[in-house]
Amino acid sequence: VSVSDLQLLNTEELESALRSIPGWRLIDGQICKSLECSDFAEAFSLMCRIAMFAEKLDHHPEWSNVYNKIHIKLSTHDAGGITRKDIQLAGLIDALRVNS
Amino acid sequence: VSVSDLQLLNTEELESALRSIPGWRLIDGQICKSLECSDFAEAFSLMCRIAMFAEKLDHHPEWSNVYNKIHIKLSTHDAGGITRKDIQLAGLIDALRVNS
Repeated sequence: VSVSDLQLLNTEELESALRSIPGWRLIDGQICKSLECSDFAEAFSLMCRIAMFAEKLDHHPEWSNVYNKIHIKLSTHDAGGITRKDIQLAGLIDALRVNS
Repeated sequence: VSVSDLQLLNTEELESALRSIPGWRLIDGQICKSLECSDFAEAFSLMCRIAMFAEKLDHHPEWSNVYNKIHIKLSTHDAGGITRKDIQLAGLIDALRVNS
C-alpha cells in the first residue's frame, strides 16, 4: 500500500474513480452497492470471497446481509472519506461478480 | 422441523424463551444481539460458522458486520414474528461463542 492509496480523493479524482466502478453510489461519505444473488448460500459464498480480499488489503467493508441480498458500504475511516483503497476494493468486488 | 417450530410464540412462551438466551433483546419484532470479536478475521470466521447453521436450519439471519463487530437480528418472516426456530438459532450462536 502506497501512502497515496490512503489519501482522500479530491472531487475530480473521486468523479473519475466513480466512473470506473459503475453501480457504486456515493452516499453519506461512503461508496455503496447492493448485490443480489440467487440464494443465501451464493450470497454468503460471495461474502467469503470479498472477506478474503478485505483481509488481505487490510481494508474492511461495512456490510449487511439478508438472505440473498448484500449491501456494502466502503470508506476509509482514518482518512475521513473515500481513498484509492476503497475504489480498489470496489473494483475487486465487481470483478468477483463478473467472474462468478 | 416440526410445524410447531414455525408457529408464533405467545407472550408467555416468548418471555420464557428469552430467559433461555441471555443477551438477546426483543426489538421491533426481532430478537437482536451484538457480538464483538478481537478483529475482522475472528468476526468473519464466526459469521462463517453461523452461516453453516443458518443454511442447515434453512433459517437465515439479518445481520451486519463492521470490522470486529457483528449485529444479528432474528425473526421468522413467514410467521410474522418470533418462533422456536429463532430461539434455536440464537441458542446455537451463543453455544458457538462459548466454545470458540
